[in-house]
Amino acid sequence: MPEMRQNPVTRRLVIIATERAKRPEQARIEKLYESLPEHDEQCFFCWGNEETTPPEVYSIRLDDSLPDTPGWLLRVVNNKYAAVNLNQPFIINNNDCLEVFSYAKGIAEVIIETNNHSLNPSTMSLSQNIRVLKAYQDRYNAISKVPEIQYISIFRNNGALAGASLEHPHSQIIAVPLVPPVITEELEGSKAYYKKHNRCVWCDEIEKELNKQQRIIFKNSYFVAFVPYAARSPFELVIMPRFHSARFEEMEIFQLTSLAEVWKAVFYKLSESLSNPPYNCFIHTAPLNVACDEHFHWHIEILPKLTISAGFELCTGMFINVTIPEDCADFLNEIEVVF
Amino acid sequence: MPEMRQNPVTRRLVIIATERAKRPEQARIEKLYESLPEHDEQCFFCWGNEETTPPEVYSIRLDDSLPDTPGWLLRVVNNKYAAVNLNQPFIINNNDCLEVFSYAKGIAEVIIETNNHSLNPSTMSLSQNIRVLKAYQDRYNAISKVPEIQYISIFRNNGALAGASLEHPHSQIIAVPLVPPVITEELEGSKAYYKKHNRCVWCDEIEKELNKQQRIIFKNSYFVAFVPYAARSPFELVIMPRFHSARFEEMEIFQLTSLAEVWKAVFYKLSESLSNPPYNCFIHTAPLNVACDEHFHWHIEILPKLTISAGFELCTGMFINVTIPEDCADFLNEIEVVF
Repeated sequence: MPEMRQNPVTRRLVIIATERAKRPEQARIEKLYESLPEHDEQCFFCWGNEETTPPEVYSIRLDDSLPDTPGWLLRVVNNKYAAVNLNQPFIINNNDCLEVFSYAKGIAEVIIETNNHSLNPSTMSLSQNIRVLKAYQDRYNAISKVPEIQYISIFRNNGALAGASLEHPHSQIIAVPLVPPVITEELEGSKAYYKKHNRCVWCDEIEKELNKQQRIIFKNSYFVAFVPYAARSPFELVIMPRFHSARFEEMEIFQLTSLAEVWKAVFYKLSESLSNPPYNCFIHTAPLNVACDEHFHWHIEILPKLTISAGFELCTGMFINVTIPEDCADFLNEIEVVF
Repeated sequence: MPEMRQNPVTRRLVIIATERAKRPEQARIEKLYESLPEHDEQCFFCWGNEETTPPEVYSIRLDDSLPDTPGWLLRVVNNKYAAVNLNQPFIINNNDCLEVFSYAKGIAEVIIETNNHSLNPSTMSLSQNIRVLKAYQDRYNAISKVPEIQYISIFRNNGALAGASLEHPHSQIIAVPLVPPVITEELEGSKAYYKKHNRCVWCDEIEKELNKQQRIIFKNSYFVAFVPYAARSPFELVIMPRFHSARFEEMEIFQLTSLAEVWKAVFYKLSESLSNPPYNCFIHTAPLNVACDEHFHWHIEILPKLTISAGFELCTGMFINVTIPEDCADFLNEIEVVF
């Protein structure tokens, strides 16, 4: 029988449509790309085309090569097609309450994760994945010092079907001078749980998942990845620190190294079992100036795009998941991770 | 410069990304289907295949043909692959607050809009569009009598990219025993506006749009269609009754006839200017048992699927629209409607 499951933080109900349930392997779609070349002369993000992007704001180079020339292993640039702009004021003009308007102040950067055009987190070396996560954190810390910025979103789109317009492995940062609605919802939900139970809802969720062992995908000393109980779509995954922490930026380097292992393992399992599927991946962390350290718990969400959200989801905000979360976990766990 | 605009009901901010703005015509995508045959022997929803669907719960027949045989002009059946099921209890089990669960009670129906496999609202006759909207209302009224049902969502997915799994023109109904989160958000926003201004926010929005004449797509005596000020994506459209009414089901037949004209006109303009684009369309109306008749105003939302929502939207709940709403309206208004 079809069932509904409730997200323990947001209290949103998800329909698990067992009547039309697909076996997890049926969710697999066509392989997106043929194998890519390691270098593509036409690619804006490959060595030799540094002048096609704005100047770099951060890079990792193992030799003494100059900025904006080849030789880098990772490179961060401003987004050439930024949806937001730092050089304008953020002033909400609500003279007309029906047409409230502001300039879209903010920062948009692109993290070019490697010079190798053909890689992705599942095929990148562990050390390169560490560099990527360290770059996330370093840029987060730099941007957090910019006045007015309230929330820094870091996300990774994989594949054209998930909105990635370039195939070269990259992530994005968009920082805005407000707390976005999805974060507000998580803040409110976790605060209510904390008030009632005097505990962090994510800490409790992690403890439950580790005890149940039904939906765990990978774990090590500091991090754990699992399919959430109320997964909104096939193969939704979360990665959470096993230690309580509201802020991604406070992660120590030994913890970050531990995260890189789980990060690579999760993408390896997804990629091997579902042929490098399209997905959106993002970090949820505490807003810069909101006191929520007791009840918020930073985490990473990964949403493979194997089905299409349609009219019902848009009309209601309720999701229909055509796979059973426990089945998805079992399916991913048939893959043994090779580092 | 990129700007942010606020939805006057939900107060959500949308980024209008003028820096990477596309001309409206660039949003056009490949034509989805070659022209379809009027009849397809393989189609579950065509004449002669009535036994492949559950028995009809409603039909319009101009001859004396029998139920579940050919001869119908419109036919409603239970959804064979329903995500919800009426024959089970809706009891939220929250013994474990981390795994709150219920059976997914509800009703799922499919409205087969015409026997002609090749049509869509833009090519269907006005009288057939009236039959479709009347069927929406008749089924709404029938389902509203079922105990426990709280919200009845009616939606139409057009094209495979918008989640339509069959090409034969059809709409869907999913009725659930709860008020969904998107509706709750609109109820709260419109209530707050009503408290402050003692007026309906949608009535005020309609008045403003009719005065401005910048974003109107089509209007007649009782209905108006426009691109909303804070459109979330290219060519988002709304259709609203110009008279205040919280409930779709209370629309009189002469108003419904007026709606059918706007409905056909809007889809005609979309189809002619953007090559029958994929879209999701749905009705937002007052929940069955919520007293909100003063401040809620039923309406129809149409979201063409011309771009892909990606990591930022999922991470934050904020939308980036790469077209300017006024430009989209101008572009649609180059098309003259032929009835």
